[in-house]
Amino acid sequence: MSAQAAYADWIAVDWGTSNLRAWAMTAAGEMRDMVTSDKGMGNLSREEFEPVLLSLVDPWLGSGETPVVACGMVGARQGWAEAPYRTVPTTPHGALSPCATQDPRLSVHILPGLKQTKTPDVMRGEETQIAGFLADHPDFDGVLCMPGTHTKWVHISAREIASFQTVMTGELFALLSKSSVLRHSVAGLDFDDAAFTDAVSDAISRPEATTARLFQIRASHLLEGTEAPVSRARLSGALIGAELAATRPYWLGQQIALVGAPALNRLYAAALASQGLEAAQHTGDDLTLKGLTAAYKELIS
Amino acid sequence: MSAQAAYADWIAVDWGTSNLRAWAMTAAGEMRDMVTSDKGMGNLSREEFEPVLLSLVDPWLGSGETPVVACGMVGARQGWAEAPYRTVPTTPHGALSPCATQDPRLSVHILPGLKQTKTPDVMRGEETQIAGFLADHPDFDGVLCMPGTHTKWVHISAREIASFQTVMTGELFALLSKSSVLRHSVAGLDFDDAAFTDAVSDAISRPEATTARLFQIRASHLLEGTEAPVSRARLSGALIGAELAATRPYWLGQQIALVGAPALNRLYAAALASQGLEAAQHTGDDLTLKGLTAAYKELIS
Repeated sequence: MSAQAAYADWIAVDWGTSNLRAWAMTAAGEMRDMVTSDKGMGNLSREEFEPVLLSLVDPWLGSGETPVVACGMVGARQGWAEAPYRTVPTTPHGALSPCATQDPRLSVHILPGLKQTKTPDVMRGEETQIAGFLADHPDFDGVLCMPGTHTKWVHISAREIASFQTVMTGELFALLSKSSVLRHSVAGLDFDDAAFTDAVSDAISRPEATTARLFQIRASHLLEGTEAPVSRARLSGALIGAELAATRPYWLGQQIALVGAPALNRLYAAALASQGLEAAQHTGDDLTLKGLTAAYKELIS
Repeated sequence: MSAQAAYADWIAVDWGTSNLRAWAMTAAGEMRDMVTSDKGMGNLSREEFEPVLLSLVDPWLGSGETPVVACGMVGARQGWAEAPYRTVPTTPHGALSPCATQDPRLSVHILPGLKQTKTPDVMRGEETQIAGFLADHPDFDGVLCMPGTHTKWVHISAREIASFQTVMTGELFALLSKSSVLRHSVAGLDFDDAAFTDAVSDAISRPEATTARLFQIRASHLLEGTEAPVSRARLSGALIGAELAATRPYWLGQQIALVGAPALNRLYAAALASQGLEAAQHTGDDLTLKGLTAAYKELIS
């Protein structure tokens, strides 16, 4: 936070399971200040949300009521106040759920997540990135791939979310690389790009071997001395390739845009390129703030 | 351990990563006593192995030299003394690796593991269960499925191990059910058998959807209130089904015997039965001791 307190016309909040970020915004949509905190929804009881938010944004408040627009797990059943899922097909944003506060200076509104009933699926937070993306690309017709802990594939048509699918590739990679027997083989952060592309192709051409492929990474390290950057790339490629095999209906013949952290976008772009697909890359964080801004504008209109 | 110390003609040891078990044996192959310990190879430095073993088996030793036959991770590179892998195709047991000791009352021999070079793979410990199985079924021609943390599929022909494949299904289940977002949906130990069989069939018929299927377990819990025994069975069925899809060349049209813990054998037998395959069930622990006994007999012959 800057030394001199910034005044906020309204406050944007991205409140996830592990972290939160809050931005002091002007009415015109300019960012004046930002704070981050590790007080994610996962560790808070219901009555702790308001004090946590106040401790972060108090310097931004005036004497009147300041609107707060929040997205993410803060609206889950175990969050501050449940913002019930809206059902696809639908627009990314609908009515905001108001959230009662003790402090009269706060006027908190939470964006609901989305659910899909046909093949059960849910999202909370990504719908706001999608709203941000559509604010910039209102005529986009195609698929958003949003890589992360739980990667979302989202079919967009006529400014609506038609359907989506979640694959927990990021969580699988984290578990296998940090907590499984493979951790001995994939240590470090170095990464062999050619091994990654080979592993993606192998996974897509023989998806039935997905889980059997994992232990080979360990055995190849033990028997052939395969080095960690190659093993790490093989694990990543096996999992992202398995994800592409599972989500083929989402990307085959589609216009694709990646929305995520730049390092993840780069990997998915390389994997898609190995299948002859070009994907535009967009940074997810920026789009969250754009989506919150779009929701604020609708709130005051 | 019994209150009155038992004298051992020789000592059998199954020394894995997390635990060890030692048996006091007679020359005729009868078990007189058993001890277990959590001093697995994973937490020991090289010089700690002998004191740990002595602390457990000292009461069984006489004044002369007592042979000790050990299998498992004790023979890994990071173990007590490396017993280099033998290469398949080969018999389950070959020459034992002697292991020097300070105490003249111990004469320790370690059974080597097996490796496969064509598709890289390794085993340490299972080769001794296989030796035990073949001691009882010398004419077996078919496939052993050995469910566990790292399930092994082993093709046996003419008393030799022709090839094998490891799938880390047990470790994946443990990670996903205890440490992933799915832990909220699969708590407890209750298990819905019908949901398991359905999930196995789905995984075998659409193996390309393996990793995408996982998050559906969470979404179905959130949206449809699916109960934990069904969710747990779906996770288990998705992973065992994916394993069967990957190992089809090992079981299609083969005679199959399961070698593992009874609860795991039961699950794999049900999964194989859903594919029209009947599998005999054998308890892995018993076969380890039989395999160690077979190795001892060869040592003294």
